[in-house]
Amino acid sequence: MSGKSDQRKPVFKNSSGLDLQPFYSRADSPKVADSAPGEFPFTRGVQETMYRGRLWTMRQYAGFGSAAESNQRYKLLLQKGTTGLSVAFDLPTQMGYDSDHLMSTGEVGKVGVAISSLEDMEVLLKDLPLEKISTSMTINSTAGILLAFYAAVARKRGIALKDLRGTIQNDLLKEYIARGTYIFPPKPSMRIITDIFDYCRQEIPEWNTISISGYHIREAGATAAQELAFTLANGITYVQAAVDRGLDVDEFAGRLSFFFNVHNNFFEEIAKFRAARRMWAQIMKSRFGAKDPKSMKLRFHTQTAGVTLTAQQPANNIVRVTLQALAAVLGGTQSLHTNSMDEALGLPTESAATVALRTQQIIANESGVSDVIDPMGGSDYVEFLTDDLEKRATDYIARIEGLGGVVACIERGWIQNEIQNSAYQYQLDVEAKREIIVGVNDYVQHEGEPIETLRVSEAAASEQIQRLKRFKAARDAKVVAAQLERLRNAAKTEDNLMPLFVEAVTHHVTLGEISDTLRQVFGRYKETITL
Amino acid sequence: MSGKSDQRKPVFKNSSGLDLQPFYSRADSPKVADSAPGEFPFTRGVQETMYRGRLWTMRQYAGFGSAAESNQRYKLLLQKGTTGLSVAFDLPTQMGYDSDHLMSTGEVGKVGVAISSLEDMEVLLKDLPLEKISTSMTINSTAGILLAFYAAVARKRGIALKDLRGTIQNDLLKEYIARGTYIFPPKPSMRIITDIFDYCRQEIPEWNTISISGYHIREAGATAAQELAFTLANGITYVQAAVDRGLDVDEFAGRLSFFFNVHNNFFEEIAKFRAARRMWAQIMKSRFGAKDPKSMKLRFHTQTAGVTLTAQQPANNIVRVTLQALAAVLGGTQSLHTNSMDEALGLPTESAATVALRTQQIIANESGVSDVIDPMGGSDYVEFLTDDLEKRATDYIARIEGLGGVVACIERGWIQNEIQNSAYQYQLDVEAKREIIVGVNDYVQHEGEPIETLRVSEAAASEQIQRLKRFKAARDAKVVAAQLERLRNAAKTEDNLMPLFVEAVTHHVTLGEISDTLRQVFGRYKETITL
Repeated sequence: MSGKSDQRKPVFKNSSGLDLQPFYSRADSPKVADSAPGEFPFTRGVQETMYRGRLWTMRQYAGFGSAAESNQRYKLLLQKGTTGLSVAFDLPTQMGYDSDHLMSTGEVGKVGVAISSLEDMEVLLKDLPLEKISTSMTINSTAGILLAFYAAVARKRGIALKDLRGTIQNDLLKEYIARGTYIFPPKPSMRIITDIFDYCRQEIPEWNTISISGYHIREAGATAAQELAFTLANGITYVQAAVDRGLDVDEFAGRLSFFFNVHNNFFEEIAKFRAARRMWAQIMKSRFGAKDPKSMKLRFHTQTAGVTLTAQQPANNIVRVTLQALAAVLGGTQSLHTNSMDEALGLPTESAATVALRTQQIIANESGVSDVIDPMGGSDYVEFLTDDLEKRATDYIARIEGLGGVVACIERGWIQNEIQNSAYQYQLDVEAKREIIVGVNDYVQHEGEPIETLRVSEAAASEQIQRLKRFKAARDAKVVAAQLERLRNAAKTEDNLMPLFVEAVTHHVTLGEISDTLRQVFGRYKETITL
Repeated sequence: MSGKSDQRKPVFKNSSGLDLQPFYSRADSPKVADSAPGEFPFTRGVQETMYRGRLWTMRQYAGFGSAAESNQRYKLLLQKGTTGLSVAFDLPTQMGYDSDHLMSTGEVGKVGVAISSLEDMEVLLKDLPLEKISTSMTINSTAGILLAFYAAVARKRGIALKDLRGTIQNDLLKEYIARGTYIFPPKPSMRIITDIFDYCRQEIPEWNTISISGYHIREAGATAAQELAFTLANGITYVQAAVDRGLDVDEFAGRLSFFFNVHNNFFEEIAKFRAARRMWAQIMKSRFGAKDPKSMKLRFHTQTAGVTLTAQQPANNIVRVTLQALAAVLGGTQSLHTNSMDEALGLPTESAATVALRTQQIIANESGVSDVIDPMGGSDYVEFLTDDLEKRATDYIARIEGLGGVVACIERGWIQNEIQNSAYQYQLDVEAKREIIVGVNDYVQHEGEPIETLRVSEAAASEQIQRLKRFKAARDAKVVAAQLERLRNAAKTEDNLMPLFVEAVTHHVTLGEISDTLRQVFGRYKETITL
């Protein structure tokens, strides 16, 4: 028998804290093969044909500087074979400030594109066939406003809203937990989210109304089990809010989508995706009484883990991204963003963004992994991990509910604290070299020349601001005031705000003006700091 | 039910011709988990602890120009964390011509290092701790001579031969089939190989006396099943030759090693390694009556598939190499060479060679895949593939034996023809875009600036030639003549040639002189061309 003394490490653990056996065999995974792909509880995949039918959507998150520059990058990506757009917005747009607002100074177009007005959105979407592509927008507090811009542009072009496909992130709970671009307190935030569910159900039925996101929770230092648990707990919270509002679960749940991180531990990540599908199906069926299988299917976008990329030896990041992307595909993702090798240094250059896309194309076309569905199914290790992660996440969800639910846990900082503890533990492991990061705490080398990175020009920001000022000056101030007054009044009732957003932006009301009005009615959220 | 019409392709096949089902479940792989790692038939790995005990050897094949330049590259690789050397030789060295021979013109130091004399080998190994490292040498027809150089250097430094560890490729059968650096006809080739088995058994017991190589068979266009079948058939032929010579199978079989390709089809490749172990264990036990488990354990080196790399968009090759390397690790390789991204363009630069090594280090240290042994074990797809490849390869071996064995099949060109048919079929698939190669027949793009490549300097070659001439001039011609006369006489008997090689090189006889002498006695092999 092999004792511990024969081993490289005293103990082998995964991110979720499981003490790994040397190997797994049939006795370890009695509960395998619980269903075929496309069958409840969808452990092996949400579709019957999966990638044999259609490959995952290769959706590269991009956006920077002006709307015109971003529009050019999207056209380039589409021409190179990307199959879905994914829009990054700058911080002011995410926080509900127009580009010409004092709060926007120095941030316009920096981490994404600046969109303040209908005109900006028209430039962003110029010549893009909205009826054919699907567009994902990473936007939360102002998700309803951005969706209103998108819908208003489509309407102006004569495209039916029912033909629009895409996703808004629209996940405020994880903003409170990890990402930080919240504006309002939880209650009005949940109300706007529910408004969007209800509006889209009737008007834009193919739109994914939320992307319940574990990504940023994981980036903040959560383990795989925590990412899974907190994301599904947030999902439960949204569904409950909509049900409480009186919506029929089967009328909106089919348009909920998820967004996960894919991190380094290859098998743990694959198992995480399988466990997520199985858990969500059971939650929707048993807890919420969903009848439509669509309501039970956890569909998800994945992004490779930005936090794992290193500024040192950037080409090594191609290796990391390849391994992570493969895990996402073997886990059955519906769409995938692969990070560029230079993202630890700055915004991705065109050539780095191309390699990232090629990574997906090579996995899809050359590796054969998309030929057979859930190829890991039955692996005793992967089945064991799937069960183990399900158990850990289920336990976590029970604890959260014991503490009064997600919102209560956020308000008292409990979830944030759990994540911080994991992040701290990981940092200790890195410092003690129990966790090796190639090029950072081992295999360090003298760096060659720095690689070329992309910087946003100052000119783009001032041009955006000038254009916005002209746009505002050209409006009828009375129309704008009337729209905002209508919105203010509606915000105080329980009326659905979405149709008002669409009307307002069509009448050239801006993002900042809508947000300011809502800030006056709803107030702002102040974070609880726990020590 | 999903019909063919829902699918991206009319049929999904792997390289070996298996028509893949949409998914696999328990019913497809009844024969799983036949043993634990380290237990016969070793499907799950040859060692009980595998990578939990020690990671695979990261062995980067390198060598170019002069012995001194190569020595510098080895030191660099060791300093960067490579854990085993792997020496590439130039064509003259492989074909038994000294650097100053007319046949060597233009080839000295080109595809590897030039080694004609003991002095060259001393320069190559300068300051390298031979008693601590393991050295692999890609050398075949002249393997015995190069091993003699290595042993003579060790002896000069006072290092006991029993402390030397390494591998010589020494696999002539695959040279006739695919690689082409043969000198003598099969019969004397097999005799020298057996001499080496017998010599090492007594003198250098830790040396791997042969690396039975599927690598070049695969590169020539064979399928995974053919690579597996022809490699094991060659293995059987070597064992049979040694047994016929009167050696006890358990006295030499433990030092046989294998060398496989790891190609694109991720799961097929993993299954190939698992099938190879299971088949070899059964062959050694049942057919050759081996008693020692060591004789039954198929240990192998792997190299990523050079033929899959593209000159277009070289950074894409990092992605390919990562996927292939991961498959090799999940297949349980004992050592691994990862190709550099620029190998389709020229010799690897230092920075490209570094990324290739980092690829292995990231897989080893960051992905968690080395924490659990045979993590794919029990996957219904992988177990099915393992069984399928075993069956296909077993059938092939039976056909070869029905045709009179490997040597007869080589002499009539049958094996070569089977490989050519596969290569031709693949070419048709690429032309019809049934097989997509990113950047070659799809996702083609205008190329940016060419990347920097390494070229061997002309100066290095002429310096090598001048040094060799000085070395020869400084010898006692009578001693050289006497050594060669002894060798000539021994070649005509059944005496073991290895001790004579060691004596000869110690007395400054060169590689070319020994080879010429053997050419006179043994004659040369002429290839059979079949149409």
